[in-house]
Amino acid sequence: MAGAVDTNGPWLAERLATIGIEVRRIILIGDQASEIRGAFQESLKRTDLVITTGGLGPTGDDLTRETVANALGLPLKIDRGVLESIREAFASRRIAMPQNNRVQALVPKGASVLPNLRGTAPGLIMRKGKKVIVVLPGPPNELKSMAELCLFPFLTEWMPRRGIILTRIIKVWGVPESAVDEKLRDLFAGKNPVLGLLASQREIKVTLTARGATQEEVERLLKPVEREVKRRLGRLVFGRDDDTMEAVVGRLLSVHKFTLAVAESCTGGLIGHKLTNVPGSSAYFERGVVTYSDQAKTDLLKIPKTLMGRHGAVSAQVAEAMAKGIRKLARTTFGLSVTGIAGPTGATAAKPVGLVYIALAGSQKTRVEKLHFRGTRDFVKERAAQSALDLLRRTLS
Amino acid sequence: MAGAVDTNGPWLAERLATIGIEVRRIILIGDQASEIRGAFQESLKRTDLVITTGGLGPTGDDLTRETVANALGLPLKIDRGVLESIREAFASRRIAMPQNNRVQALVPKGASVLPNLRGTAPGLIMRKGKKVIVVLPGPPNELKSMAELCLFPFLTEWMPRRGIILTRIIKVWGVPESAVDEKLRDLFAGKNPVLGLLASQREIKVTLTARGATQEEVERLLKPVEREVKRRLGRLVFGRDDDTMEAVVGRLLSVHKFTLAVAESCTGGLIGHKLTNVPGSSAYFERGVVTYSDQAKTDLLKIPKTLMGRHGAVSAQVAEAMAKGIRKLARTTFGLSVTGIAGPTGATAAKPVGLVYIALAGSQKTRVEKLHFRGTRDFVKERAAQSALDLLRRTLS
Repeated sequence: MAGAVDTNGPWLAERLATIGIEVRRIILIGDQASEIRGAFQESLKRTDLVITTGGLGPTGDDLTRETVANALGLPLKIDRGVLESIREAFASRRIAMPQNNRVQALVPKGASVLPNLRGTAPGLIMRKGKKVIVVLPGPPNELKSMAELCLFPFLTEWMPRRGIILTRIIKVWGVPESAVDEKLRDLFAGKNPVLGLLASQREIKVTLTARGATQEEVERLLKPVEREVKRRLGRLVFGRDDDTMEAVVGRLLSVHKFTLAVAESCTGGLIGHKLTNVPGSSAYFERGVVTYSDQAKTDLLKIPKTLMGRHGAVSAQVAEAMAKGIRKLARTTFGLSVTGIAGPTGATAAKPVGLVYIALAGSQKTRVEKLHFRGTRDFVKERAAQSALDLLRRTLS
Repeated sequence: MAGAVDTNGPWLAERLATIGIEVRRIILIGDQASEIRGAFQESLKRTDLVITTGGLGPTGDDLTRETVANALGLPLKIDRGVLESIREAFASRRIAMPQNNRVQALVPKGASVLPNLRGTAPGLIMRKGKKVIVVLPGPPNELKSMAELCLFPFLTEWMPRRGIILTRIIKVWGVPESAVDEKLRDLFAGKNPVLGLLASQREIKVTLTARGATQEEVERLLKPVEREVKRRLGRLVFGRDDDTMEAVVGRLLSVHKFTLAVAESCTGGLIGHKLTNVPGSSAYFERGVVTYSDQAKTDLLKIPKTLMGRHGAVSAQVAEAMAKGIRKLARTTFGLSVTGIAGPTGATAAKPVGLVYIALAGSQKTRVEKLHFRGTRDFVKERAAQSALDLLRRTLS
């Protein structure tokens, strides 16, 4: 099995839960037809709904369509409408359809076709008795648009009215997972909603999953527990559900009509990258500089060489000067900076790998924080970037 | 099931293949004890080796240790040595061990303990008849260091001598997946090595998986097919195995002792972030600027407002001026630039979402390329960044 990471399964699980479908199991398998067939048939035995993703491409190792059709005993036939829309997708890019894309127009007998607005392979819905089988393409952008447009509405209709599951996610930054656990310990005994805790590099998620007959009932069950979790965690909570740190910071900047410029060293552009992942960020993100060399810090931020000589480039003084410098040069409301040692090299006895200073300059004062992360280069970069954005969030909220 | 994405399973699958263990199936499940027990027992029936990851934390929803021990009928007992090393891990951070971390010292009777050098929960190896059960912690940095240090050597010993599987990955950029497929079509019929094709946002992977009795035999099987694939794909191939575009570019810059500065607009810092993910990148990456506003382009790159007025900020002329500007100001061998419309807003009739210009300025000339990507904001950013780095790679190699 190749080393591909699956993001489709977890995304589908999260979205399906909101319409009352609980995903019990996600199975990842390789390209062999026997494995695909085995996993498909076992899953069909165990559950009422099986969704496959991927393996619908035009190439020789894309076997899902054929394997599922065979397992269900359905013959495949070229669908003229589908073939035409694949041709059109290529035509809109001024390319003739390659011959091998023809297989993507094969549709099992009796299957419903889900149009693909972002690619060429259509999705398929088939039935076997009371069971439903859904076949979706692998590229996440194709899968997501298809699922939102066609699949979820279909499944909402299909679902017997057995109630709703809703997961609320409360997002936390700034303390270790075990500290969050200790604050919430007794709440984990609750049965409805059930609490969960999940830490990743960029956030700690507290999940509250409630079941009930109606949307209203579920909301009523969630509300008091959500309020209690938020009360206990206070300002550690930065968002909920789909919120990202950069989207929350973006909203706060937008509301106040504030602008931001960033001076990065060890994060190398990651803060700018995060900020600009948010559509519309050009309204508040004015510019960034990645001053990786000392010369760049002097050229772009007017930081005196003597200051770096005295305290070192990784110091509270230089972090402060970077934040003030970028704010002044960009004429923005805030200047945010990071300087640190991402590792694995660059450490000294006094300055270990993972030492990071972040600073936020506003019109009145400049806040500087010293942090120390233990981990790999990516880990230090990610934590440093999140912590810098969080410093801005705490200041604005 | 929460929407967490698993990277541990795919990583383990890739590494286990190199010691001859083929992972047939990766199963993702939620926190419920019944699901953990079910998936564990079924897997144990189907295979000789079951590895679990995650659920060893100190919190109330971490159930793996207990569930696996119960399923195997093994009583759990606090291991004094493990408890001591957990205390030490906290002490080295000058924190007293929280009471709830005690559960991480529970060890099933007869289990071997795998030390955790990056966290607190140890790994476990248990046997049931001829079968082996391995329990690993979830945080990827803990899991990886534990697997490399202790688990893979153990499994190499344990494995009956049934030969070796080796997967060579050839990485491609610059054409659609279907174009790669067409060039290699006939090779997909081969049985040893087996060819696979896997496209993601940042690369297309051609995988060659060979089996044989010895390392030498496998290498001998791979070599001619690898050579043929490379011959057909030519300069589209940018690397192999663990190579990333930024590491390949970094090696080329290092070899020639060249330096680089980057001026980004729509990629927002992503190119700088990628470049600085490579340890030692400070030797060639001098600085970056993220000129998100027109004012920033004028201030930081000396681009005349009249040029932007005449051609627009997203134009071949501005891309060229950005690359030349950053090269001159940073006094580097190369200046690399990107300007484009990441979407979803910002498009005009003449300039659609996904239109991107990249430019590379050297001492002799400046190369400019016009590109057009169809997809979401992330997709456009990622493709634009990879294409810019690839322009540098093609120029240097």
